[in-house]
Amino acid sequence: MKILGVDPGTTRIGWGVIESQDGNLRLLDYGTLEIKSLTQNARLLALGNGFRDLLLRVAPEIVGIEKLFFSKNQKTALSVAEARGVLLLEIMRADLPVFEYRPIEIKQAVTNYGAADKRSVAKMVALLLGVPEITGHDDASDALAIAIATFYLHRNKRV
Amino acid sequence: MKILGVDPGTTRIGWGVIESQDGNLRLLDYGTLEIKSLTQNARLLALGNGFRDLLLRVAPEIVGIEKLFFSKNQKTALSVAEARGVLLLEIMRADLPVFEYRPIEIKQAVTNYGAADKRSVAKMVALLLGVPEITGHDDASDALAIAIATFYLHRNKRV
Repeated sequence: MKILGVDPGTTRIGWGVIESQDGNLRLLDYGTLEIKSLTQNARLLALGNGFRDLLLRVAPEIVGIEKLFFSKNQKTALSVAEARGVLLLEIMRADLPVFEYRPIEIKQAVTNYGAADKRSVAKMVALLLGVPEITGHDDASDALAIAIATFYLHRNKRV
Repeated sequence: MKILGVDPGTTRIGWGVIESQDGNLRLLDYGTLEIKSLTQNARLLALGNGFRDLLLRVAPEIVGIEKLFFSKNQKTALSVAEARGVLLLEIMRADLPVFEYRPIEIKQAVTNYGAADKRSVAKMVALLLGVPEITGHDDASDALAIAIATFYLHRNKRV
């Protein structure tokens, strides 16, 4: 089964694709979708079109995405929520089952410790996928952690 | 010029269309888009598709939409922001200029009083559009207020 993990944002979306076969996980691809538009509305358009293309290219069977919680910066939270709405719309239009997890659930599923730091999560992601390291931006590694958490947790959640 | 006003939400979107000719405003159409889906993701899909159809049917030249501010209910604010992201995506995909106003700006533009109550706004909307009253749900009347505010204010804002 091919699983896409998505770490939402307004200017950078982390994404990672893994495949599970007979209980083993394999890394397929990962990266970031960089949004360089200057206004929020132009970013939403670039994001919707870029993510729609990514879904077509990756062709996942299920998608995992991080749930949004309130940060101290409430204005940022609203902008990220708008971006997240756009991502969810494209996932629904692609008719894919989608699962949503809180950061603590993702860390718990990947490292067995809900308060793990970014570095420990990244190390465990590489270990579980059998690669020396995950290069590039943190957001891509976070997205792979979300894909791994989705693999472990989605059976417990109804579609 | 044909102006669409939009009052965002997750289960009901108010919309109203007016036309300006030689400085006079005329009511063209208004209503609500009712979203009956049970989950937030299904609502975002119904909303995206329903609003895309509305934009095709109404064919506005410009769009005005209410800006979102934090309410006491932060969870609701995030859901409405996701819905708003979906609406903005469809407006951008339709290649339409979009203007965003805070509730206080809309009330000020329509009634000359930024703290006007819903009833005063609805009365003024009917008066400005030369109709006896705006029937149906408040959200439709609010959307017409947004369209009227967009007519008065958009010249002062850059597209």
